Amino acid sequence: MTTTQSRSAHNDVMKAATVTDFGAALDIQETSLPEPGRHQALVKLIASGVCHTDVHAADGDWPVKPQPPFVPGHEGVGTVVKLGPGEHDVKLGDMVGNAWLWSACGTCEYCRTGRETMCESAEYGGYTVNGSFGEYMLVDTRYAPKIPAGAQPVEVAPILCAGVTVYKGLKNTEVKPGQWVVISGIGGLGHVAVQYAVAMGMRVIALDIRQEALQLAKSLGAEAVVDASEEGLNVGEAVAQITGGGAHGVLVTAVHNAAFGQAIDMARRGAVIVFNGLPPGDFPAPIFDIVFKQLTIRGSLVGTRQDMDEALDFYARGLVKPIVSECQLEDINDVFRHLVDGKVDGRIAIKY
Amino acid sequence: MTTTQSRSAHNDVMKAATVTDFGAALDIQETSLPEPGRHQALVKLIASGVCHTDVHAADGDWPVKPQPPFVPGHEGVGTVVKLGPGEHDVKLGDMVGNAWLWSACGTCEYCRTGRETMCESAEYGGYTVNGSFGEYMLVDTRYAPKIPAGAQPVEVAPILCAGVTVYKGLKNTEVKPGQWVVISGIGGLGHVAVQYAVAMGMRVIALDIRQEALQLAKSLGAEAVVDASEEGLNVGEAVAQITGGGAHGVLVTAVHNAAFGQAIDMARRGAVIVFNGLPPGDFPAPIFDIVFKQLTIRGSLVGTRQDMDEALDFYARGLVKPIVSECQLEDINDVFRHLVDGKVDGRIAIKY
Amino acid sequence: MTTTQSRSAHNDVMKAATVTDFGAALDIQETSLPEPGRHQALVKLIASGVCHTDVHAADGDWPVKPQPPFVPGHEGVGTVVKLGPGEHDVKLGDMVGNAWLWSACGTCEYCRTGRETMCESAEYGGYTVNGSFGEYMLVDTRYAPKIPAGAQPVEVAPILCAGVTVYKGLKNTEVKPGQWVVISGIGGLGHVAVQYAVAMGMRVIALDIRQEALQLAKSLGAEAVVDASEEGLNVGEAVAQITGGGAHGVLVTAVHNAAFGQAIDMARRGAVIVFNGLPPGDFPAPIFDIVFKQLTIRGSLVGTRQDMDEALDFYARGLVKPIVSECQLEDINDVFRHLVDGKVDGRIAIKY
Amino acid sequence: MTTTQSRSAHNDVMKAATVTDFGAALDIQETSLPEPGRHQALVKLIASGVCHTDVHAADGDWPVKPQPPFVPGHEGVGTVVKLGPGEHDVKLGDMVGNAWLWSACGTCEYCRTGRETMCESAEYGGYTVNGSFGEYMLVDTRYAPKIPAGAQPVEVAPILCAGVTVYKGLKNTEVKPGQWVVISGIGGLGHVAVQYAVAMGMRVIALDIRQEALQLAKSLGAEAVVDASEEGLNVGEAVAQITGGGAHGVLVTAVHNAAFGQAIDMARRGAVIVFNGLPPGDFPAPIFDIVFKQLTIRGSLVGTRQDMDEALDFYARGLVKPIVSECQLEDINDVFRHLVDGKVDGRIAIKY
Repeated sequence: MTTTQSRSAHNDVMKAATVTDFGAALDIQETSLPEPGRHQALVKLIASGVCHTDVHAADGDWPVKPQPPFVPGHEGVGTVVKLGPGEHDVKLGDMVGNAWLWSACGTCEYCRTGRETMCESAEYGGYTVNGSFGEYMLVDTRYAPKIPAGAQPVEVAPILCAGVTVYKGLKNTEVKPGQWVVISGIGGLGHVAVQYAVAMGMRVIALDIRQEALQLAKSLGAEAVVDASEEGLNVGEAVAQITGGGAHGVLVTAVHNAAFGQAIDMARRGAVIVFNGLPPGDFPAPIFDIVFKQLTIRGSLVGTRQDMDEALDFYARGLVKPIVSECQLEDINDVFRHLVDGKVDGRIAIKY
Repeated sequence: MTTTQSRSAHNDVMKAATVTDFGAALDIQETSLPEPGRHQALVKLIASGVCHTDVHAADGDWPVKPQPPFVPGHEGVGTVVKLGPGEHDVKLGDMVGNAWLWSACGTCEYCRTGRETMCESAEYGGYTVNGSFGEYMLVDTRYAPKIPAGAQPVEVAPILCAGVTVYKGLKNTEVKPGQWVVISGIGGLGHVAVQYAVAMGMRVIALDIRQEALQLAKSLGAEAVVDASEEGLNVGEAVAQITGGGAHGVLVTAVHNAAFGQAIDMARRGAVIVFNGLPPGDFPAPIFDIVFKQLTIRGSLVGTRQDMDEALDFYARGLVKPIVSECQLEDINDVFRHLVDGKVDGRIAIKY
Repeated sequence: MTTTQSRSAHNDVMKAATVTDFGAALDIQETSLPEPGRHQALVKLIASGVCHTDVHAADGDWPVKPQPPFVPGHEGVGTVVKLGPGEHDVKLGDMVGNAWLWSACGTCEYCRTGRETMCESAEYGGYTVNGSFGEYMLVDTRYAPKIPAGAQPVEVAPILCAGVTVYKGLKNTEVKPGQWVVISGIGGLGHVAVQYAVAMGMRVIALDIRQEALQLAKSLGAEAVVDASEEGLNVGEAVAQITGGGAHGVLVTAVHNAAFGQAIDMARRGAVIVFNGLPPGDFPAPIFDIVFKQLTIRGSLVGTRQDMDEALDFYARGLVKPIVSECQLEDINDVFRHLVDGKVDGRIAIKY
Repeated sequence: MTTTQSRSAHNDVMKAATVTDFGAALDIQETSLPEPGRHQALVKLIASGVCHTDVHAADGDWPVKPQPPFVPGHEGVGTVVKLGPGEHDVKLGDMVGNAWLWSACGTCEYCRTGRETMCESAEYGGYTVNGSFGEYMLVDTRYAPKIPAGAQPVEVAPILCAGVTVYKGLKNTEVKPGQWVVISGIGGLGHVAVQYAVAMGMRVIALDIRQEALQLAKSLGAEAVVDASEEGLNVGEAVAQITGGGAHGVLVTAVHNAAFGQAIDMARRGAVIVFNGLPPGDFPAPIFDIVFKQLTIRGSLVGTRQDMDEALDFYARGLVKPIVSECQLEDINDVFRHLVDGKVDGRIAIKY
C-alpha cells in the first residue's frame, strides 16, 4: 500500500484535551496535526470513550507516570486520513481505533508467545503516546483495532477498553459454558461483562449494591442477582445456594477492601477469581482460605490484538451492546468529575 | 482378595500419642486395636513423619477442628496386618501409608474430575480419623498410598505429606522444563521441593534467611540462592538479575507477612505464585501489581492419589531423598516444641 | 440411606430383548428380575433410546465381544424400585439412567485423574452388563446418571449416550465461544451436537448430504450449512469462505472413507478434529497435511459422570432437545434394521 | 543501532550451492552478495547443517514448490557483517542463524497468538528465500535465532532445525516429567530428541531397527530400547511391559507405513502421538483404536522463535549435544545422496 494523503483532508491544526499538570483540569488546546511515522496512520476521530484510567493518567496516580503535556484517551474510533511510510494493512478511509495497548515490541518473550499485554516495551494509548481526546490521533497500524463494518462509532468505542478488558478477564476465569460466574460490580465494565459472559455460554450472577444496576444486569441476561447492600446477607451463602456450592469463577470489576473476602466466599473450591481493576494500595488476602479451597487469583489487564478482534466480533454479531451516553470534547472535565463521584451509569463517549 | 487375618498378628492393645485436649501435651496411651471396616486395612506402623500440621491439629488452630481424643499423624508407613470386608488391591504384608487425604467420596464433582483434594466429604488422616502416631492405624485401601519396593520407611514417610505437597505445588506453578522457579523457604518442605523441581527439569533459585539452608539447597541442585536476610538486598532485583526478568514461578512453603510482596517482586510478568502453607490471618496483597504484571496466585493443598503415586515414583527412582532424623514415639512432645521453635532441619520421623 | 424395598413393587419376572446369538434377531424373553448387589439398584424402565452401538453389540462387530445371552441398551431411563446393600445417594422412586460407561474401578490412574472413560476395568451398559432393553435393569448407583427434575423420559434418553458423546466431543475440539465448528453428519448424534455447540457459544456449520438434515440443522441454530453432495463443490473451500480461513474445530459424527480428508480440508491451521464414531477398518490419513497445518486429531468416546451431569443440565435448562420417535420393545428388530439402513432421522426410543 | 558496514568486510561475490532445476545436482556458483533490506542483516556463514528437507526442496517434492534458481539451507550459523535499514537488536559481529521459519507477518491470528509457525505469510529459509548453502546469507533480524555465547558453530547448527523441531514436538506430546515417551526413529532428529526428553524429565524408550542407533540412544539417556526389527516382537506389548500400560506420548521422527499402527499400539489410553516428518502420501489410520483409546494425533512443524530460544538454551546449558560430522560446501551433492540412502548417522554440517 502506498503512503498517499487523502485529498479531502484536514486542516493543519486540531483541538485536543490536554493534561498540562497532574491534577489540573484538562485544557482544550489547539495544536498542530502530528505526522504519522513508519507503521503509523493519522486518524480523524469520530468518537472516544472515557475510561476511569484516563482520570488516573491525568492525575498521575500510578507509580510509572506519563509526561505532561499529553492527550489522554484510549477508546478512540475514527477514519484513517494519512498513512506513514512502510506497509499497512489498512487504507485511507478505513475505520480504526486506538487502545490502551497502543503497540508492543513484537519480539520479546511475551510478544512471541501471544501475551503482548505483558510486553515491557509496550506503548500505551493516551498515556505514553497521545490519545483520542482530540480531533486527530496517531495509531500504529500493526496494532490498531479494525472496527467491523456496520459499527456505530459511539457504541463500539467502549469495546476498545471496557469490552476487551472484561472479555479477556472472563477468558481468564476459565469458566466453561454451563458453569457459573459472578460479575462483581455492574458499572461501565460490569454491564458489558454480563453480556459477554452470557454470549460465552456462562450462567451469570450479578453482584452490586445498586438496585438499578441489578435490574440492568437481569435485563442483559443475568440469571440471578445478589444485592450486597442487603442487611444481614451473607453473599457467600447466597451464591452457594444459587449455584449449589459456589461460583466457578468471579470477575471483580471494582476492587474495594471487601472485594477479596467476598470473592473468596462466593468461590467454589478450585475456582478462579480475576481482578480487572488497578487500585493502589494493599488488600487483605486470607491465605488459609485460598489454600484450603485451592483457589486461583489472577490479575487481568486489557487484552491482546487477538482478544480485541474477538471482542469486536461479539459486538459486530449483536451479542454485546454497551450502554453509552454522548458528550462533547468540551465536557471532558465534567465527565471526569462524574467518574470520580461514581455517578456514571454505563459508559460516556465523546462525539466529535 | 480375601478378608483373612495375618497369623503372626499382633496383640489386642497398642500405644498411641493421643490429643486429649487442644493445646495440652500429647498423651501416650494404651488403647485397643481398631477393627478395619469395609475397604479398610489395619496397618502396623514402621515409621511416621511429623508435620507442622500435626501441631496445628493438636492445638485446634484451624476453624474446622478435630474431635479429641484423637491420634494425629499423616505420614505413616507400615505393613498391612488385617483386611476388612470388601475387595482390596493390597494384601497382607504389603507396605502402605496413610496421608492427609485419607479418603474421599469418589462421586462428587471434584472426585469425578481428578480433583479429590477438594472433596467436601474427604476424611483427613490424623485429623478426622486417627492417624499414624500409634503402633497401628487404619487406612482406606482405595486411597492409601502403596509404598514402592525398596523404600526405606523412615526416609519415604515425609514423601506422604511434605513430598506430595511440594510436588503438586510445583505442578501448580506451571513452570516448564528450562524455566526458573523460586523455592521460598528451605525447610522440611523446601528441601524436598528443590529436588523435585530439579528432577522436573526446572532451574531452581532457593530463598531463605539461613546460610546452612542455602548451602543445603545448592548441594541438592539449586542453581542459585538468595539470602533474604542480607542487608539492603532487594530480592526482586536479585532474582531478576539471575533469571533475566524474574522467575516463571514461585513456590512459597512458608507464609509470613513479607512473603506475598516478595513473591510478587520475584515474579516475571505472567508468572504463577503458589502458596503451600495454611497460615491463619490476612496478608497484604498488592492488587495493582498482580493486575499490572498479570500474575496468578494459587493455593495448593497436598495432592491426589495420582500425585502421590508420582511423588513416590520420583523417590523410588532415587531422584528425591528427604533428609530425616529419627525419633521415638515418646519424643513426640519434644518434636512438636522444636517444630514450633523452627529448630527442625529437614524432617523428623518416628521409628516404631 | 436404607436398603428397603418399594412396596408397590413389581413382579418377579420381566420381559427383555435378548441377544442369544450374534447376528440373530433379538428375542423378547421372560426372565427373572435381577437382584441388586452392593452399590446397585434395580430400576423399572420408562424409556430407552436405541443406539447404533446396540446393533454392533448384537452383531458382535468389535474385537472385544459381549457374551450372549445378554440384553443391550445403554440409554435407559427409569425409577429406582430396590436398592442393594451399601450406601447410595439415590433413593426409591428417584429417576435414574444407565449409560455406556456403566461403572469404572474408581482407583486406576484414569479414574484418579477424571478420565474414567479410559478405565480398563470399566463395565459397559448393554454390553458387559445387561442393559435397558427390558422392563427392569440394574445400575451402579455410584455411576448411574441422575435424571433432572421435569425431564421427559423418552426425550432425555438419547442424552445418555448421543448427548454426552457429542457434548464431550465438542469439548474435545477445544473450540472457544465465538469460534467456528463444523458438525460433520447431522443424524442422531449430529442434530444434538448442533444444539450443544450453539449453547456453548460456538458458531456452527453443518455438513451433510441430505437437504432435510441441513434444513433441520439451520432450524436448530447452525449459521451455515454445506451440502457435501453438491456436484463440483470443494467442501474445504466452502468452509474457508464462510469462516475466513477454515474451521477451528471439526466434529466427525459419521466416519466414512472421505471423512478424514474432508475434515482436514475444512480445518484451519492448528485446528482440532474429533472423531466420535467407532468404525472398523483403516482410513487414509494425509500426514503431510496434518503436520504442515499442525492439526490435532482426537478420538472421543462417550463421557465421564461429570460430562453426563453437564450434558443433562443443558437439556434441563431447555438448551438441547433431542428429536425422538417412540417405539415398543417388540419393535426392536425393526428399529435395528432401520438403523442399519440409515433410515432413522433423529433418534428412536422404546417407551415401556 | 546504526546501519553501518563492517570494515573488515567481504568481497562482492560469494559461492553458493544453487538449485537450478528440480532434481538436478546443485551447482556451486559465484553470485553477487545480496543487499540487506529493512530489518535484514547480511551474515557471513561459518557452518550450516544439512537437512532432509533441503533434499525435498531441491527435488521439488512438495505441492508448494520453491522457484529455481535458489539456494537451500536452513541450519546456518554465521556472523553479522552488514545491517539493513531500521532498528535491529543484533549488531555487527553477533553470531546469528537462519531457520526454516525465516520470518512471519507478525499480525495475523497465528502470529498474535504465539503460533507463528502457522502464519500463512511466513517465509521459509532455503525455500522461499535463499538459505545457508553459500558463503553469505540474509536473515530477518526480528526472526533470526541468536546463537548463545560459547556455542560451537558446527555443533549448534542442527539445533536450528532438527533441535527445535523435536523440542517442539516433545512439548506437543504433553508428556510430563516422570512420564514415558517413545522416540520412534533414532536418526538426525531422534538422537537429539532423546537428549531433550531426558532434560525435560521424561522417561525415554528409543525405537529403531538398527542396533547401533539403539546403543547410541542408551548412551544418551534412554532408559529402555526396543528393536523393531526383532522377529516376532510385538512392539506394543514390549512398550506396555516396560511402562506398565503404554507410553504417555510417542514422537514419530520417521514416518513409514507401519508407523501409525505402531505408534497407536505403543500408546497408553489418552496418550498423544506427535508426527514430526513431512512424508507425501496417505497412511492407514485405525480410527476405532484412536477413538476407543481416546488418543490424540498431532502434527508438529519446526518451532516458534520462543521454542528456538529455549531449544538453544538447552544446548547452551550442555544438556543437548548433536552428533555432527563436518563436510565442505563442495560435498553437498554427495551428502544429499547419503541422506536419500539413509546412510547418515546423526547430522552432517558444512564448515565454511
